[in-house]
This record gives sequence, structure tokens and C-alpha cells, in this order.
Amino acid sequence: MSEGTAYGLGVGPGDPELVTLKALRLMQRCEVLAYPAPETGPSLARGIVAPHLEGCTPVEYAIRMPMEAARFPAAAVYDRAASELGAHLAAGRDVAVLCQGDPFFYGSFMYLFTRLATRFTVEVVPGVSSLTACAAMLQWPLAARDDVLSVIPATLPEADLTARLAATDAAAIIKIGRHMPKLRRVLDALGLTSSARYIERATLPEQAIRPLAELADDAAPYFATVLVHRRGGAVEG
Amino acid sequence: MSEGTAYGLGVGPGDPELVTLKALRLMQRCEVLAYPAPETGPSLARGIVAPHLEGCTPVEYAIRMPMEAARFPAAAVYDRAASELGAHLAAGRDVAVLCQGDPFFYGSFMYLFTRLATRFTVEVVPGVSSLTACAAMLQWPLAARDDVLSVIPATLPEADLTARLAATDAAAIIKIGRHMPKLRRVLDALGLTSSARYIERATLPEQAIRPLAELADDAAPYFATVLVHRRGGAVEG
Repeated sequence: MSEGTAYGLGVGPGDPELVTLKALRLMQRCEVLAYPAPETGPSLARGIVAPHLEGCTPVEYAIRMPMEAARFPAAAVYDRAASELGAHLAAGRDVAVLCQGDPFFYGSFMYLFTRLATRFTVEVVPGVSSLTACAAMLQWPLAARDDVLSVIPATLPEADLTARLAATDAAAIIKIGRHMPKLRRVLDALGLTSSARYIERATLPEQAIRPLAELADDAAPYFATVLVHRRGGAVEG
Repeated sequence: MSEGTAYGLGVGPGDPELVTLKALRLMQRCEVLAYPAPETGPSLARGIVAPHLEGCTPVEYAIRMPMEAARFPAAAVYDRAASELGAHLAAGRDVAVLCQGDPFFYGSFMYLFTRLATRFTVEVVPGVSSLTACAAMLQWPLAARDDVLSVIPATLPEADLTARLAATDAAAIIKIGRHMPKLRRVLDALGLTSSARYIERATLPEQAIRPLAELADDAAPYFATVLVHRRGGAVEG
């Protein structure tokens, strides 16, 4: 009996229609469907593709991350998931792992990937990332020509965040959450506030686009993004 | 009579199966289908979606870019395209503009967008970008946790390229083409050659992954990408 294949499927930023044909085909035919989830409650990635799974009856496996481990990968959780999904693969069953956005763009799938790829065939199916989804929803081109575009986590220390932002033409600042007050100080200090745009939960029904100045300091969710471009609003050419 | 809507459709990096459901639906129902193309010969974006357009009979419009203008946007070409597509929109016809990868990620669509969006409704549909497609095909995670990820055009002057690469944790170097000798010098000088991986035409049938050391200096096509990560091959956690 031959072993199964593991697929890391990017399912896009939130709109179920932003799933690719390839991810759709594989999620509908794999015998095992895994996805990240919080300690309790529903999985965001599973929710995105719910309309596509009607009539499908895979074995489902939620990779639940304890709250206190959520900010950094918890080795024990991934060890156990790799072991249990590995048993399915060894038994010849194909496994699809759903990943919000793209599997290798700040995704937790890479921790499963490193554990599974040494023993099994793993295929990664790229997805629409939040990076380009945010730009599309803001109707604001990300980068052109010789622009350097940087993706910068707001979790960095203030001095670091300042230096990284100062050194790029365009930026997407991710993982904002409780770091909004720091981010606002940094943008102000660099004179970039008027060149920045805020969006949260891009392409989901709850999507919101708000002026930075109107945001309460503690209001940003984790899935908020600020795009910055030194050109301001205009694109020439 | 109401006006038509223009759609900028990201069609992904090359594999026709990496088109999203949304782009598929819109390209199959728009009355006018536009796409960038070289001065003579076929359009890459049109080629990607060819399998999806069998039986469709839209009015087709190739936005042909003269060779000498290809490196920078040629205002006259976009002015004319906006005017001709604008006439379709004004007449109530929906227009789909195909964009390889993502419309706002170093794409030429933004030059049409700026011309059309002041007069018509324009919707941008994000696509899978070459950035995440290259990482998936290389089986090499792009960025995790607090990594800063920069997209850096190889067209930059050597000193600039060196400074930008030195200032990031991970990088995707794009637009390589004839800049390969310069890029190789920069990677060597920074001690990053062993942390870099090369791929061309990701997800297309002609895709090639080669060790940097084995590439002839003049061999890189425009659609080549080098990914760099200071962690080397390993991902912990």
C-alpha cells in the first residue's frame, strides 16, 4: 500500500470565492481535513471553506492551540498533530491542511511542514495572501517598478519598527493587535501617518476600513493591516 | 443605461488551477476581456486562463506594449487603452482585465486603474502572487513570527541592493533578468549565497529550480526570483 500525500492548502484571506481551483479540488477529495483552531470554538480557515464542503465527509482534525501558546508555536501541539496526521498518511490516506491566506506567508503550516516533509510527500498550494487582499480592498496599489516592499510585524520593538519602516518605500504592517499605540507613534515620528491606510478582516463580511486617526488605541484586532507608501495616494505613469 | 464595471483580475503565477473562483466567474461572464501583451505574439496572462475560456466569446483587447517602452510604463499606451476600454464601460459593458499574479503587486494594472477609477467603478480581485508561489514550489517557508520580509527589485543599483538586503530577515528578489551578475556579487559580499534559492517561471510547465552556483551569468529570465532567508534551510518551533 502506498502512502498518502499531505497538502498545505492556502485558502485565501476570507472570501470563500478567493479559494483557488486547485485548493478546491484537493480539499474536496482528501480523506482527512485538518485545520488550525483556537483552544475552543470554530476554526477561521475551516469557516472560509465551509460553503465548499457541503456533501463532503472527510475525517476532520482540528489542530487546537492553547491560548497561552498562541503567540509562539507550541512544539508539543505540532508534534502531536504531525504524529496523528502521519498515521493517516502512513495508512495511505491523503491529508489536506487548510491554511488561511498562504501556507508559507507567516502561517503556522510551516511547523507541520518541517515535521512531515522528512517522512512524507508534502505539496504546498499557494493562496491569495492578506498582503495583496488588503491592497485590493483598499484600492491602493502595493508596489510598482523599483519599489522595495517590506512586510513588517508590529510586534517588533519600537526602535526596530522605526528603522525598518524608514528603510523601505512601501510597507505592510501586520500582527497589529495591541501594538497600535506604538505603531501610531512610529508613523507620526516618521511623518508617514498621512501615507498610511488601515484595514481589518479584509474580504470577510466584517471587513472595516477606517482612518488611522479615528481608531481607538486599543481597538485593532490581530487581523488588522496598515499599508504605507511614501508616494501617498498617487500612482504616476 | 447603467455603466459597466471594470475588474482587475489576478490570475495567479501561471498554473491555470491557481486561478480563484472569483476571477474565473468574472472572466467567464464579462463582455470585454483585456490583457497585457508584448508588441507581437501571445499574452502570458491570456495564456494562463486559456483553458477556462473555451466556449466564451468576449470582445478581446490586447494592451500591446512596444519593446522599447517595456521597462517603464508608457503613458500613451495606457491612455489609449483606458480610452478604448472606457468606451465599452460607458456603453454598459463589463470589462475584465487579466493580470498575471496579483493586480497590485508590481503589476501594470495600476496604470489602467488610476486612469479608469476616477470615472468608472473598478473592482480589484487579488490573486496568488509570484512571491508565495515561488516559496511553495521551492518548499521553503517565506517568513514567520517577527521576520521582516522584503521584496527587492534586482534593478536597483548595487550599493542600494546591498543595503536593502542587509536590512531584512528574508527577501524575495524579483526582476532579475540581466541583473544576475550584480545580484550574485551582492549575495557573495553579504555571505548570503548559501541562504539563497533560485527559481524561474514558478508553477508553469517550464518551471526550473537551479543552484545559484550553476547558473550562467546571463541566463536568468525576467520571471526569475531568488528567495533569501538568514535562517538558511531550517525552521524551528
